[in-house]
Amino acid sequence: MISIAVHGGAGTILRSKMTEEKEVQYKTALEVSLKAGYKILTEGGTSLDAVTAAVTELENCPLFNAGKGSVFTYNGEHEMDASIMRGDNLAAGAITAVKNIKNPVVAARAIMEKSEHVLLSGAGAEEFARLHQLAFENDAYFFDQFRYDQWQLAKKEGVVQLDHSDDKKFGTVGAVAIDKYNNLSAATSTGGMTNKRFNRIGDSPIIGAGTYANNNTCAISCTGHGEFFIRAVVAYDISCLMEYGGLSLQEACRKVVNDKLVKFGGEGGLVAIDSKGNICMPFNSEGMYRGSYSEQSGLFTAIYGD
Amino acid sequence: MISIAVHGGAGTILRSKMTEEKEVQYKTALEVSLKAGYKILTEGGTSLDAVTAAVTELENCPLFNAGKGSVFTYNGEHEMDASIMRGDNLAAGAITAVKNIKNPVVAARAIMEKSEHVLLSGAGAEEFARLHQLAFENDAYFFDQFRYDQWQLAKKEGVVQLDHSDDKKFGTVGAVAIDKYNNLSAATSTGGMTNKRFNRIGDSPIIGAGTYANNNTCAISCTGHGEFFIRAVVAYDISCLMEYGGLSLQEACRKVVNDKLVKFGGEGGLVAIDSKGNICMPFNSEGMYRGSYSEQSGLFTAIYGD
Repeated sequence: MISIAVHGGAGTILRSKMTEEKEVQYKTALEVSLKAGYKILTEGGTSLDAVTAAVTELENCPLFNAGKGSVFTYNGEHEMDASIMRGDNLAAGAITAVKNIKNPVVAARAIMEKSEHVLLSGAGAEEFARLHQLAFENDAYFFDQFRYDQWQLAKKEGVVQLDHSDDKKFGTVGAVAIDKYNNLSAATSTGGMTNKRFNRIGDSPIIGAGTYANNNTCAISCTGHGEFFIRAVVAYDISCLMEYGGLSLQEACRKVVNDKLVKFGGEGGLVAIDSKGNICMPFNSEGMYRGSYSEQSGLFTAIYGD
Repeated sequence: MISIAVHGGAGTILRSKMTEEKEVQYKTALEVSLKAGYKILTEGGTSLDAVTAAVTELENCPLFNAGKGSVFTYNGEHEMDASIMRGDNLAAGAITAVKNIKNPVVAARAIMEKSEHVLLSGAGAEEFARLHQLAFENDAYFFDQFRYDQWQLAKKEGVVQLDHSDDKKFGTVGAVAIDKYNNLSAATSTGGMTNKRFNRIGDSPIIGAGTYANNNTCAISCTGHGEFFIRAVVAYDISCLMEYGGLSLQEACRKVVNDKLVKFGGEGGLVAIDSKGNICMPFNSEGMYRGSYSEQSGLFTAIYGD
């Protein structure tokens, strides 16, 4: 049962601040991502290729805080994180605090497949990406006027800002999928927090926190307040509740996202898929850009909680 | 029931390569660390202060691959990682890919206590440490002839080498403790792998992988082949096996270290303590520098498996 689910960030996405035109833009972008992944799955491709393609589309879209459209750091730069994991052999790759790499998810995958490491960072990770001829873009490519204005506002207010100023949003993108070989994969990518400083790293590049995949249980990609998601080891927690606690994917997701994280103060959500192809897209914030594509659900996208 | 346990790395520590003199040096250093932590606990101090003091002693000792005595990277530098977590409120701090900070564990704790973040990296993390007036040392402080020779050999062989050339060893230090208030804490610190490149990050600064503490279950500090420990989310796995699987600390440690990690190919070990003060120090390699101090065990140190 092939299927795929993606997210484009969670948070206080207010209907009152949203225009119909913007809503259509977001939904269309999610559909482009889902279709790219689903096409690979229907043609017999792997879930690893599907999540890579889906996240690449979201990275290339300036609407989302990942790749092109990443937020500005305190120093006016774009510093990105990404990770990827395959559920059959628990192979994983991740990259953090990198600049100018066009598609961080592709770099994370190269680390998984072409190095003996899991996590590379900063200038060293960029050197690795160059050695493997990955695509780079100059700063102008990543520039977005809306993100720039966000940053100026955050600087003025002296805060490390979440993604949106009006819409308090944790902008991160991610995908989970299952292929015809019953293999699960997950991938996540982000530009982090507006005005972030000190080379802060969130949960997106952390295997077990922001991303996890295991054929015995589930594949997970998170979006939310990264510090809380790291401390709660969110993605692996869901897997453990299924494996050791006997919970279903839906029960585990509800317990972690709508119970444990709420009590803990960790706002956000995630997309998840289990080994039977069941999809779950829980969040404890006002909204989450999300969507899924399977024979059962068809092509589905949503923004708000209803 | 106050108690503390520490480790100074695991791996192929061969008796044939060890002299009696070296053995005494290692055991004495472990005792210095244990005594520093235990003294705090007996005087009514917190487990957080105890693990900070114990790891600081190990960082300051050139015998161990953390702080002073850290291995050389591919570029001839010392790049260090550390993390700390408290079990009462799941607060955590971590630092990665930093140079010249005298005690990375102290920096990790400052991040936990004086920032809204969990994980800072590279130059940004150093800037944070400077702003908080933490101690820095020049490169000469970190220089050690033995480490330098290791690096030269690793370079000649073109390998990313484990800690020791003769003794294949994962050099990392760490501590776990429980205080009279029944609070658990864990801390880990490392210089990583000799000749490492691309700003590689292992499991030591990753909450859930190399370090975890939760008053409901246990406190864990790991040492081993970091990539495998990240993929297996080792520290949190033990916590989940206890919380969701109903295993005792000893059963959970055996399952993860001597069963799952062995099958997975992940060499190493860990020190663990549960909420009743039980200590467990499992490893699947030939040896692990380790020790514990409690009323029950007295002052205990060991190197080999017997």
